[in-house]
Amino acid sequence: MTNRDSYTRSDNLIHFTGTYTDMYQLTMAQVYFLKGQNEDSAVFDYFFRKLPFDGGYAIFAGLEDLLGVLESLRFDQRDLEFLKEKGFDARFLRYLKDFRFRGSIYSSQEGDMVFPTRPVLRVEASLIEAQIIETLLLNILNFQTLIATKASRMKLATGDRKLIDFGLRRAQGAGGYYASRAAVIGGVEATSNVRVGRDFGIPVSGTMAHSFIQSYDDELSAFRDFAESRPDDCVLLVDTYNTLESGIPNAIRIGKEMEARDQRLKGIRLDSGDLAYLSKKARNMLDRAGLDYVKIAVSNQLDENLIKSLLQQDAPIDLFGVGTKLVIGHPDAALDGVYKLAFIHGKPRIKLSESITKVTLPHRKQVFRLFNDEGNFMGADAVALAEESAINTMHHPFDPLKSLVVGECRSEPLLHKVMENGERVSEPCTLNDISSYSRGRLKKLPQEYKRFENPHIYKVGLSDRLKEERDKLIEQYKKGTK
Amino acid sequence: MTNRDSYTRSDNLIHFTGTYTDMYQLTMAQVYFLKGQNEDSAVFDYFFRKLPFDGGYAIFAGLEDLLGVLESLRFDQRDLEFLKEKGFDARFLRYLKDFRFRGSIYSSQEGDMVFPTRPVLRVEASLIEAQIIETLLLNILNFQTLIATKASRMKLATGDRKLIDFGLRRAQGAGGYYASRAAVIGGVEATSNVRVGRDFGIPVSGTMAHSFIQSYDDELSAFRDFAESRPDDCVLLVDTYNTLESGIPNAIRIGKEMEARDQRLKGIRLDSGDLAYLSKKARNMLDRAGLDYVKIAVSNQLDENLIKSLLQQDAPIDLFGVGTKLVIGHPDAALDGVYKLAFIHGKPRIKLSESITKVTLPHRKQVFRLFNDEGNFMGADAVALAEESAINTMHHPFDPLKSLVVGECRSEPLLHKVMENGERVSEPCTLNDISSYSRGRLKKLPQEYKRFENPHIYKVGLSDRLKEERDKLIEQYKKGTK
Repeated sequence: MTNRDSYTRSDNLIHFTGTYTDMYQLTMAQVYFLKGQNEDSAVFDYFFRKLPFDGGYAIFAGLEDLLGVLESLRFDQRDLEFLKEKGFDARFLRYLKDFRFRGSIYSSQEGDMVFPTRPVLRVEASLIEAQIIETLLLNILNFQTLIATKASRMKLATGDRKLIDFGLRRAQGAGGYYASRAAVIGGVEATSNVRVGRDFGIPVSGTMAHSFIQSYDDELSAFRDFAESRPDDCVLLVDTYNTLESGIPNAIRIGKEMEARDQRLKGIRLDSGDLAYLSKKARNMLDRAGLDYVKIAVSNQLDENLIKSLLQQDAPIDLFGVGTKLVIGHPDAALDGVYKLAFIHGKPRIKLSESITKVTLPHRKQVFRLFNDEGNFMGADAVALAEESAINTMHHPFDPLKSLVVGECRSEPLLHKVMENGERVSEPCTLNDISSYSRGRLKKLPQEYKRFENPHIYKVGLSDRLKEERDKLIEQYKKGTK
Repeated sequence: MTNRDSYTRSDNLIHFTGTYTDMYQLTMAQVYFLKGQNEDSAVFDYFFRKLPFDGGYAIFAGLEDLLGVLESLRFDQRDLEFLKEKGFDARFLRYLKDFRFRGSIYSSQEGDMVFPTRPVLRVEASLIEAQIIETLLLNILNFQTLIATKASRMKLATGDRKLIDFGLRRAQGAGGYYASRAAVIGGVEATSNVRVGRDFGIPVSGTMAHSFIQSYDDELSAFRDFAESRPDDCVLLVDTYNTLESGIPNAIRIGKEMEARDQRLKGIRLDSGDLAYLSKKARNMLDRAGLDYVKIAVSNQLDENLIKSLLQQDAPIDLFGVGTKLVIGHPDAALDGVYKLAFIHGKPRIKLSESITKVTLPHRKQVFRLFNDEGNFMGADAVALAEESAINTMHHPFDPLKSLVVGECRSEPLLHKVMENGERVSEPCTLNDISSYSRGRLKKLPQEYKRFENPHIYKVGLSDRLKEERDKLIEQYKKGTK
């Protein structure tokens, strides 16, 4: 099932309309409209200033959803009635009635590693259209990028062991929908969330809850009924009453009964207690009973650090179920991505700030990634003017003393046109394709950027011409010639 | 506009279907169904174990949404096709085709203060129905309770000053939808999110972005166009280039021009820098120019602690815009509410654990709140069996040495029937009513439970009979007579 399925069918979980935006976008849009600026073409950049989780990279996610939503974004009748109530001008409301997004989007590939300061995506559209989509764009891209990045870190920790998303019940409301999708881009292999399995084609997984066992008079009968009903996919939850004295012995008894029927108990799940200790005990008890093929799954507030610690203790765990920490992107819980105007009315634009680190980059831009001779990332992305085709020197964006001569290095442009006149330029990528692409790219990122503690800092720099243009504009605005 | 509007109209933002649940609910449900347990009535409790934000209370939110969703919850054609693909039994799929929730719900009032351990809400339904709705129930109630609580803390900090939600762009995807609603229950007065304004009848607010100013050749022209287009609601963002040397002087100039047209500049907004320092400077400059009526709004990563600090520094701020920290419920970002089986097949049930604090409370239960002579909360909720009508002694749930004689204290039952046979027993409450109710209840909570640092601990205890029943069950299960 491709993503397109979920957007073109009317029974999608979430139905965005034009009012899924901040009020000020519409307030500003009305001023532009009434002042006759509705057709002025503008360039906006989407970027963020700080990597989440104090990590060494982020994984860009949400693009396909954004494109799907933009293709179908309209103001419906209730939107228009509501805005009329709010006092919007009748001429502007007529404009909104026919609104559709007709702009172009140049973007990094979904699933690629992205870094602070450099544009992740560029929107070229009429000023009004570009403003109206801002909130929606940030809402979709910030969150999915956060979650894909968190999932990727968890997957680095689990290595070859399976990683499954159990987070829906602790997700931020319907945020859980896109969280599960983004988690797959980052490396999660299955989800408990049936609806996203249905809509995005993600493998769906689930075992049993404590309530199942509690609903029986005894644990053994509960296990037995479950095993009879699901002989091919039987994972027993063993910690409802007493893991070592009741849960595991009962699971072993069921495992032996299944063997007698030529069936195989698939696994047990531990959801509380000391998972390192209990998984070792469980492995030992299962192995002694001849059930060495039975897998051990664990869950309970896991994150990448706990997973890493369990595996460092040689806990014999085959599958990790992650929930809250994944779907909320703990501890950051938000990515502060922003959307800034860079060019309009034929002129480059910047936003000043008391700190150079918050001054925006002007002009229509391209980003180049540098590669070493082995085809791996050199650890540097260079931002240039869109018309530049090669980089010679790369300047630190904020420290005027730092620069890097790039020379003959192989480079690759990262922003590609993905939407033109409001329509995708190619078929949507499947989630599977995005996820495979992401894994391949992450392999090209050297190890030191992937460690959790003080990762290497990936360099982002400006081309000669971009730096010159920005510095000139800063001077101009400072002199008040703005 | 009432909440009902948003549920009964087909153009709601989010369309939940039966598969918006964890896979294991359906896996277990199929076992119950095939074993003929589909009509067995079960009792589940929704509760949480720890207050968010290390605070002294939580505000219960999400109930009306949950009830609305439950009334219309169905498995649609795509759900059934998907489950068929996943190998579910044809007889069970026929059951799901006709599925609707027919249970009863007894709940705390939405907007009331709630506390750990005690049931916030009780579901009585067939075991299958109760399981299928678990994930959805937790997804809606956990998140909205978290956000309403965060908003309430922010409102305690702002006091009489206005508090506005600007969070949509940093919200967790479509989680932003319910976040804005829950924020209003907690005390937020308006939102920037137009769609939730439309769907929930929340006042909508918005000024201008930096891009508006950047889109002009100079700041003054931008301000002037905006003021001309919105003479009744003109708030100018003054920090695009230089707050003190350009933004505020230009805003003052526009303010004077508006006065000459018999109009009034409504306010200025500061979105960066030292807000205490800049707001004082701004107030001074505005006052000296005779614009003492112009309000000062601020935003930029604010939370309750920063707001408190600004006001302790006497920053002359009239309006606080809050975003990320509100809509993600920073720093917790999740409430660990759970849903546990308490009664089935005519028998009470518990889940054991290595720690008494995680043992669940058996039986169908009621919760009583104790009041003092002035009608304020005494700081204690007592959990009893549903058939008990009064409490004499209240026992600490986990410490056998602690108890409290309640005596003649006035008490009030907190769980009321809100749904019967899958239908609401009364008209939905409006968001406005819920929000007013919440404010009234919070007034009855003594001050020491509301402070941010080491708040007083609100007591939750068990009645004699409930404690006796639980302890008896623990013994039974420990002895293995389960």
